[in-house]
Amino acid sequence: MKREYPDRPVIAVGGVVIHRRRVLLVRRSREPLKGRWSIPGGALEVGERLAEGVRREVKEETGLEVEPVQVVAVLDRVLYARRGAAHAKDSNRQQPRRRHGRRVRYHYVIIDYACRLKSGLLRPASDVLDARWVAPPELTRYRLTQAARSAIGEAFRLLSK
Amino acid sequence: MKREYPDRPVIAVGGVVIHRRRVLLVRRSREPLKGRWSIPGGALEVGERLAEGVRREVKEETGLEVEPVQVVAVLDRVLYARRGAAHAKDSNRQQPRRRHGRRVRYHYVIIDYACRLKSGLLRPASDVLDARWVAPPELTRYRLTQAARSAIGEAFRLLSK
Repeated sequence: MKREYPDRPVIAVGGVVIHRRRVLLVRRSREPLKGRWSIPGGALEVGERLAEGVRREVKEETGLEVEPVQVVAVLDRVLYARRGAAHAKDSNRQQPRRRHGRRVRYHYVIIDYACRLKSGLLRPASDVLDARWVAPPELTRYRLTQAARSAIGEAFRLLSK
Repeated sequence: MKREYPDRPVIAVGGVVIHRRRVLLVRRSREPLKGRWSIPGGALEVGERLAEGVRREVKEETGLEVEPVQVVAVLDRVLYARRGAAHAKDSNRQQPRRRHGRRVRYHYVIIDYACRLKSGLLRPASDVLDARWVAPPELTRYRLTQAARSAIGEAFRLLSK
């Protein structure tokens, strides 16, 4: 699937996994957010239900089995190519889509679910450099996006009830 | 954009527009849900923010200007090809994506926003056969999907506060 210069927006799902008052974070090995800490997740596949995609992505990236409970965030992220930047040529590729005259390099619509842990052993895997459980007071060290912090806060509120 | 036999899920946005205790419905002229009454909306474009897509689709289909307020529903709809059914050939097309051994004909992830009316004159337009304001007691006549009824209920609760 083409993630860069997409022909249409890409749907990604994320799992905000809360367990023993900590949240599961991963450090991404790919763009966008390469090298940054974030919520585990990735692109939804054709025919895959939203909750199924969350379970698969969290399992692939961290080895853990989780159960999605409820949507805690819906957001979009549009990143443009730098002005004048070349982009990789591809014989099959049409012209990149433009918006307001600029080439759209990434466009994700992200749906995050609060999740409960079911089973498994934490083991960073595909697409991630590291994965760990983080308690709320330590979150400030992880340079999360505002959207990720907000989704985490919502998941703690929901699952602490 | 290819909506049938897609290479990845298609993101659609919908606007549940509430005004004077009625909700705006459209009758679709295209698959899926051809001929059925539904919430106005359609596929999000590359580079287009979610709220921007809602405003554009409601305007295109009904002539009305609206302001999205909050997400009221996130759902997915996966429709498979009938077993043994042929599908249109297309020289550029790869094999259709399969899931559980079946070809995925449509896959939408739908994000519905409760909206307030801003201005405009109701005028059914592109992709719709009809559009009208409907009061809750009359909704049962419109054979809405369970998901649409649920999103409408949520929007009434939210915007009646």
